[in-house]
Amino acid sequence: MLEKLKEEVYKANLDLVKYKLVLFTWGNVSGIDRDSGLMVIKPSGVDYDKLTPADMVVMSLDGKKIEGDMNPSSDTPTHLELYRRFPEIGGVAHTHSTFAVAYAQAGRDIPPYGTTHADFAFGAVPCTRDLTAAEIEGEYELNTGKVIVECFENRAIDHNAVPAVLVHSHGPFTWGKNADAAAKNSAILEEVAKMAYLSDQLGAGEANKAIRKKHYLRKHGANAYYGQK
Amino acid sequence: MLEKLKEEVYKANLDLVKYKLVLFTWGNVSGIDRDSGLMVIKPSGVDYDKLTPADMVVMSLDGKKIEGDMNPSSDTPTHLELYRRFPEIGGVAHTHSTFAVAYAQAGRDIPPYGTTHADFAFGAVPCTRDLTAAEIEGEYELNTGKVIVECFENRAIDHNAVPAVLVHSHGPFTWGKNADAAAKNSAILEEVAKMAYLSDQLGAGEANKAIRKKHYLRKHGANAYYGQK
Amino acid sequence: MLEKLKEEVYKANLDLVKYKLVLFTWGNVSGIDRDSGLMVIKPSGVDYDKLTPADMVVMSLDGKKIEGDMNPSSDTPTHLELYRRFPEIGGVAHTHSTFAVAYAQAGRDIPPYGTTHADFAFGAVPCTRDLTAAEIEGEYELNTGKVIVECFENRAIDHNAVPAVLVHSHGPFTWGKNADAAAKNSAILEEVAKMAYLSDQLGAGEANKAIRKKHYLRKHGANAYYGQK
Amino acid sequence: MLEKLKEEVYKANLDLVKYKLVLFTWGNVSGIDRDSGLMVIKPSGVDYDKLTPADMVVMSLDGKKIEGDMNPSSDTPTHLELYRRFPEIGGVAHTHSTFAVAYAQAGRDIPPYGTTHADFAFGAVPCTRDLTAAEIEGEYELNTGKVIVECFENRAIDHNAVPAVLVHSHGPFTWGKNADAAAKNSAILEEVAKMAYLSDQLGAGEANKAIRKKHYLRKHGANAYYGQK
Repeated sequence: MLEKLKEEVYKANLDLVKYKLVLFTWGNVSGIDRDSGLMVIKPSGVDYDKLTPADMVVMSLDGKKIEGDMNPSSDTPTHLELYRRFPEIGGVAHTHSTFAVAYAQAGRDIPPYGTTHADFAFGAVPCTRDLTAAEIEGEYELNTGKVIVECFENRAIDHNAVPAVLVHSHGPFTWGKNADAAAKNSAILEEVAKMAYLSDQLGAGEANKAIRKKHYLRKHGANAYYGQK
Repeated sequence: MLEKLKEEVYKANLDLVKYKLVLFTWGNVSGIDRDSGLMVIKPSGVDYDKLTPADMVVMSLDGKKIEGDMNPSSDTPTHLELYRRFPEIGGVAHTHSTFAVAYAQAGRDIPPYGTTHADFAFGAVPCTRDLTAAEIEGEYELNTGKVIVECFENRAIDHNAVPAVLVHSHGPFTWGKNADAAAKNSAILEEVAKMAYLSDQLGAGEANKAIRKKHYLRKHGANAYYGQK
Repeated sequence: MLEKLKEEVYKANLDLVKYKLVLFTWGNVSGIDRDSGLMVIKPSGVDYDKLTPADMVVMSLDGKKIEGDMNPSSDTPTHLELYRRFPEIGGVAHTHSTFAVAYAQAGRDIPPYGTTHADFAFGAVPCTRDLTAAEIEGEYELNTGKVIVECFENRAIDHNAVPAVLVHSHGPFTWGKNADAAAKNSAILEEVAKMAYLSDQLGAGEANKAIRKKHYLRKHGANAYYGQK
Repeated sequence: MLEKLKEEVYKANLDLVKYKLVLFTWGNVSGIDRDSGLMVIKPSGVDYDKLTPADMVVMSLDGKKIEGDMNPSSDTPTHLELYRRFPEIGGVAHTHSTFAVAYAQAGRDIPPYGTTHADFAFGAVPCTRDLTAAEIEGEYELNTGKVIVECFENRAIDHNAVPAVLVHSHGPFTWGKNADAAAKNSAILEEVAKMAYLSDQLGAGEANKAIRKKHYLRKHGANAYYGQK
């Protein structure tokens, strides 16, 4: 079932390796079929060079395994919570990419220092609050998803305009219209985080709002004129 | 038309990938035929591995599309302004290379800390002022070009001696006698920016003027003796 | 003798190159056959691209060469001391990987800043005390091993929960159930050290204990649920 | 003439590319035949992928071109001064490698922070004083060599124990028993400089003298036991 989606999700997982975002078995990408409400995700802890599309695991939105011989990624409940609460998204990616993790470990947002950031997201990429001991000792991966959603709600951030988050002390999750876009956003986030780190060391401040708005809208707005029709 | 120039511009665009200066579809290089006054530039938002020489777009100096099925790079008006105002140049490149962007985001010049810089440019690589909201909401890409030219004029910088600029909160533009030289200058600028960043963290000051002049002139002066005749 | 172990140790040494952890002939990995009490280790100062499995040197646990035409790695006595004192381990690796060395040179532990660290080790990766002049001028490599063991004992660190150490002014040693795991741990340590360096520059503090415990145990605990059975 | 030496020097120049130490035509390596007193060096400003062994230029120790169709490297007088004043060396290399240049631009020695440094050199890698305007405007490249030698003499540094120098505001020169060793030393210096930079940011101090002496002598002393006989 969902062979085309499995192929897409498989390919997006391999893209994490191609983009140099993961070491060993780290990282995972999923995609969802909104019609059936089924999510396809990488199995847990399998070497990327041994993965096949058939290894992808199919899960229902409420967390039941529908198909697959292997355990799904241990971060599966986080992915599912994001799909339940962010209804427009079609793919989710999670990595431990170096510079994004550094911001997460420092508990800091990635500030919108320039147009590279604004081409990607409108506003800072937020870092969530720390999870409580109870949240960690309970349904940890589900609670990670809940804390992400809470962060966007409490700070009134539009998850369509900011397709990424840093989980405190942990690392980034990104999303997009499908698995491919989610993986690409992980690569862009890492580059944006590296630029932010360097800019921070050089004493940068946020870019002015007009230029950030311009760049975001020329690429993502109703009258976008970047790229081809 | 201009098949040879299209081939050169196509190749210089691919060089940005080879020099590891761009991610995905970021970056663009153009070249100009000064006899006809026509500029050739990369189309907007097309994957580098799908580009062909025939995809290059031909524009007149006053911004009319002369040939090409695709939209030209969204930064086209910036390139055109540079060609109109810097009459000696034959190629322009724009990237979001990491260290050059960090300086642009910090709103700082790249100081001439040593001979690597002086082999490339005589004096700091300047960072422009911030664009105003009116400039951004108006003809943004054209105004970007105007602010670059203003920066060189106000600070009496010779654009032939300093073939690069940082646009505030955005990133670098470089130029040269043709598209190939412009792309090479983007690679050199990135390396110079990285060295400057590290030197800055180590507490460097500007190199003395005599050694900077020596290196600039032994490579670019009337009596240059670097390289072969 | 021990042909299978030689092959494993040979491969793990080449993995140091693949993981980009060594320059020229730097670094060495060993593995032990606990039944016979014999250790297999890379010969000293041989180019990685000239190594063969047959070049591996076989040593007894008390430091006698049992088989091999070449001198074993000069760090052999350190490896042997670790095998004698850490009875559960089956492989040891030593590199001069860049970020781990930086922490060793600064004489600082690598703090447990986040989940990437906690997936690997429970608690800081300790940096040993400086060796004394007498220890250095005496049996230096043996004393290096003794100072590592002393560090774990004095600070009551479980060497099974923290499979790595930084030797002061020198660099990292890592270990694991076999040579392959020891080499992999060198790669993970370097990535963790790089993240820690960046986090440190951004002002990070230790991750809370609950999330570190959760990540360590979900991967390494009795009820681990990361990966496949 | 000197075909074997030309081949060696040619190969050592290509090694600078392999070690990722040079961009475009930057960098140069030479070797000397002490019997004839003739030096072989890379031609100036030629692309590495177009070089052939036959392109190497032969110079006499007093600076006359003996053979070769092309101009020798513009840094030739610096190489020659080093061969005249450091009679034991057989090869010299010059690069603009990133971290070594950063120290040179900051006008700082590379401190001996650890054993990686001590495996390479006994004591700090010194940074020369700034050249005076008269030295720069006169025989600049020759004076660069003289300032290097002065630095070693004034500070009583043994050029056999420290096979590298940073020229103020410029970059590194390294040397060794032949061209291959000189190029390898450029690669090691760059790695040592990177480690020093990171250690410096983490607050490191010099390693104690006993461990530095131990590492230097176990690799380079009369009773060295690193490597094979």
